[in-house]
Amino acid sequence: MDKVRKMERVVAMTKFLVDSPHHLFSLSYFSEIFGAAKSTICEDVITIRETLAEFGLGVVETVAGAAGGVRFVPVPSRDATLELLKKLASRLSEPDRIIPGGFLYMSDLLFTPTLMVKVGEIFMSRLAHTIPDHILTVETKGIPLAFMTARAFDIPLVTVRRGSRVTDGTAVSINYVTGSSRRIQTMSLPRRALPAGARVLIIDDFMKAGGTAKGMVDLAREVGAYIVGTGVLVSTAEPVHKLVDDYLSLLILHDIDEHTKVIDIRPVLEAKK
Amino acid sequence: MDKVRKMERVVAMTKFLVDSPHHLFSLSYFSEIFGAAKSTICEDVITIRETLAEFGLGVVETVAGAAGGVRFVPVPSRDATLELLKKLASRLSEPDRIIPGGFLYMSDLLFTPTLMVKVGEIFMSRLAHTIPDHILTVETKGIPLAFMTARAFDIPLVTVRRGSRVTDGTAVSINYVTGSSRRIQTMSLPRRALPAGARVLIIDDFMKAGGTAKGMVDLAREVGAYIVGTGVLVSTAEPVHKLVDDYLSLLILHDIDEHTKVIDIRPVLEAKK
Repeated sequence: MDKVRKMERVVAMTKFLVDSPHHLFSLSYFSEIFGAAKSTICEDVITIRETLAEFGLGVVETVAGAAGGVRFVPVPSRDATLELLKKLASRLSEPDRIIPGGFLYMSDLLFTPTLMVKVGEIFMSRLAHTIPDHILTVETKGIPLAFMTARAFDIPLVTVRRGSRVTDGTAVSINYVTGSSRRIQTMSLPRRALPAGARVLIIDDFMKAGGTAKGMVDLAREVGAYIVGTGVLVSTAEPVHKLVDDYLSLLILHDIDEHTKVIDIRPVLEAKK
Repeated sequence: MDKVRKMERVVAMTKFLVDSPHHLFSLSYFSEIFGAAKSTICEDVITIRETLAEFGLGVVETVAGAAGGVRFVPVPSRDATLELLKKLASRLSEPDRIIPGGFLYMSDLLFTPTLMVKVGEIFMSRLAHTIPDHILTVETKGIPLAFMTARAFDIPLVTVRRGSRVTDGTAVSINYVTGSSRRIQTMSLPRRALPAGARVLIIDDFMKAGGTAKGMVDLAREVGAYIVGTGVLVSTAEPVHKLVDDYLSLLILHDIDEHTKVIDIRPVLEAKK
């Protein structure tokens, strides 16, 4: 009978943990749900941790102390990450993605949940050292992957608008120059969206010269927040020097040839640890 | 030894199932991963199904036949749904959310992953009977909840843009009249985003007169797609007659009093089954 109960506890606990990445559950929480001693819950956590580790499905962390507990961190394996990035590069190389002007159609992939869940987990695991408390992105196409990154970190997303809209209330606006086309644009952020002192991680879908990212850096600074890092799904090889210095790119777009319809896009390999 | 192995299998299988709602896993898939007979996997599935059902954590469905398998459907319990809607109504009633002009500041909640994961599951469970193959929304604030609804259904999201942008390629545009302010606006959809014959479920954050939703209905029809349903997080009590007839609203905004700072917003209770 005890064996069955343990089986049920680990199934339910796995569901709770996996469903809320990075969310800290106290042992008392599980202890109450299952009517089991904390020592028993501890043993269950070890079973779950070892199993997920064995199959490369993520990490279960235990935080000690009164405010402690257990949480699931969805760290994708090196192989799974490389496989996903190769798949994305392959899909993004399809010739009919070229839009006149040398743009790349990415919306279908950017709005596919199964893909963006994984991209969010990759950003989280590669940028966890920046310890952000907010994710920042700019509308529109970067929102799903920024939101899934926010979910993997268990922190809120803040979205910069192009222009300014009345339903956002008092907003801070800045003008910025797009790095590639040198046009002047406006972006704005609701005054109340980011608290002063916030640690902000910028996540976006695409970076060419970095003008938009630079605009977000300036806007965040304007409200007293700190940028702790920048992650983009795709960056272009040219120009080599971007308007932001320090960023992580998962894929690099080396070339789009409108004439031959060849798109050269490749995953960025992580340094071996 | 066999007991331990079963424990590991159910933990790992729970992770796979919960992580990809509505995604159909073949029994052979699990059979290969764990080196176990399909009959054994079947028994594991029963253990997981019964446990999740017991704790109200969702439904595990088995699909028979050659193309069959097993999938997790994240059906929130009636109690969990009501609790979440009450919590949202309470948060949305905070007096400092009133923006001059009688608007309601909702962005912080709309961009919080833990909340929107649950809202997506509620939309999925209440609108599953519409059998959509695409979710449609309009930029910007509805994107996270529409994306989480798409995730719960395991189908792609398509996002209508206000205006039209060059990186989307050939687009279909329509002019529409906003129902409340009677202004003429433009919205556009990349030509390739929705296939003809697609079954489309509209998901948005807010509906007043329904002009934006009506615009999406017209736009989808323009590309030969069918609207099978509409879901909004908040709709206003007035006007009673919206420009779309058939929609599901999770919360109803009865009144915003800018003078007294009282916001009257209430959950819509589901009819008992």
